[in-house]
Amino acid sequence: MRNLKLILAYDGADFSGWQVQPDTNTVQGTLASAIGRITGEKVLPQGSGRTDAGVHALAQVMTFVTESSVPTQNFVKALNDVLPPSIRVLGVSEMPAEFHARHSARAKTYRYRIYRESICPPFLARYVWHYPYRLDEAAMARGAGLVVGENDFTSFAAVDPERGREGDPISNVRTIFSSKWERVDDELVYTVRGSGFLHHMVRNLVGTFILVGRSTLQVGDVTTILAARDRSAAGATVPASGLYLVGVEY
Amino acid sequence: MRNLKLILAYDGADFSGWQVQPDTNTVQGTLASAIGRITGEKVLPQGSGRTDAGVHALAQVMTFVTESSVPTQNFVKALNDVLPPSIRVLGVSEMPAEFHARHSARAKTYRYRIYRESICPPFLARYVWHYPYRLDEAAMARGAGLVVGENDFTSFAAVDPERGREGDPISNVRTIFSSKWERVDDELVYTVRGSGFLHHMVRNLVGTFILVGRSTLQVGDVTTILAARDRSAAGATVPASGLYLVGVEY
Repeated sequence: MRNLKLILAYDGADFSGWQVQPDTNTVQGTLASAIGRITGEKVLPQGSGRTDAGVHALAQVMTFVTESSVPTQNFVKALNDVLPPSIRVLGVSEMPAEFHARHSARAKTYRYRIYRESICPPFLARYVWHYPYRLDEAAMARGAGLVVGENDFTSFAAVDPERGREGDPISNVRTIFSSKWERVDDELVYTVRGSGFLHHMVRNLVGTFILVGRSTLQVGDVTTILAARDRSAAGATVPASGLYLVGVEY
Repeated sequence: MRNLKLILAYDGADFSGWQVQPDTNTVQGTLASAIGRITGEKVLPQGSGRTDAGVHALAQVMTFVTESSVPTQNFVKALNDVLPPSIRVLGVSEMPAEFHARHSARAKTYRYRIYRESICPPFLARYVWHYPYRLDEAAMARGAGLVVGENDFTSFAAVDPERGREGDPISNVRTIFSSKWERVDDELVYTVRGSGFLHHMVRNLVGTFILVGRSTLQVGDVTTILAARDRSAAGATVPASGLYLVGVEY
């Protein structure tokens, strides 16, 4: 019996999110049936976390346990041959039995891409949020720095009906190691690395920084909103299309 | 009455090609209804040429005649507001009545992108052809040069049921001004500029150069195939996903 860890990239636009659901195209469900075709086993692969509908992954991590005789390294090509092109297995490795994609994770990095020019190329529309309006990008950069550290992120957390069921800690305290905006050609890109993220947390942070960029909020209001521990104090959830799970550290 | 010329980009993966068809999502049909919403007029915009299902455009040109009072420059934003994100209007200009997107065209440029690494990123799958197998890229480059000039391209032309109906010249003679392969990071990219192109001509040229790259054909066989004026002499049609109409010159 082997505990296999896969590194995955996927185009979230083609899926109703990570988590398996009946009669819906999900990343987890698509991977479960691809593994079933190769091993003949019925497995439910465990991801490092769920991604919502439309959210992309550059290096999602998942594990599954198999008793099949397929050599570990062969899973990359075998799975890529049966998966749709919108999901790619980038690597595979055998892990100790106690390794768990979700519980063993120590840090995750997310990125959010905003396309700033007036006309968004059709080839980018699925992969960015198009926001061509005036933004004070310097103020947004200062605001981003204010969420670094250990904080209670209740103001930025959507109510998650799945919480608890999967044994999450009840606390909304998370540690953000880095949080920054940078200009990359025609895009404004937010990159955040933290110990963990609550439901919609990155998209709610971005929605709040947007209010700072529009001068609806002052930079220092980010600290006030964080302290309020009240979802209604923060900005709206920005669209899923711009969000990427960049990587998971163990 | 104004004859308006639009420059368009579109993601062909979302459409059953350019040409309007009943109960099918086409670029021409989508543009016709978007114009209808803005002007109240029923028009059939004329493209510089049809693109097949899955073929992309960086700068397709189309014209339509309008009697509406909408100022010319307003059409860019007005159309982009009602079009899906997979079609963007990049520019608009008023042209003399005799200008016709198709008949006035003097040259077109197409590009074909082949992704060469073993795993194709999911974000590129709609926009390239994934061909990770061995290719003699230098031989392909030499083969590409052999189609430059005025030639009868019957060997590279699909039978086109629409020919004649739209008043095309019956001749399969076209002039290729330049034809070359180049390496762009992980991609092998073919760019061809010519007076005009027959149905499937670029994809059939690429399919033939692939046979040269695989050493199934020798470089000089390209000249023999061209002289044969026989479709069965050339290579297969490669997938639409890698093909782009780059621009049209007048």
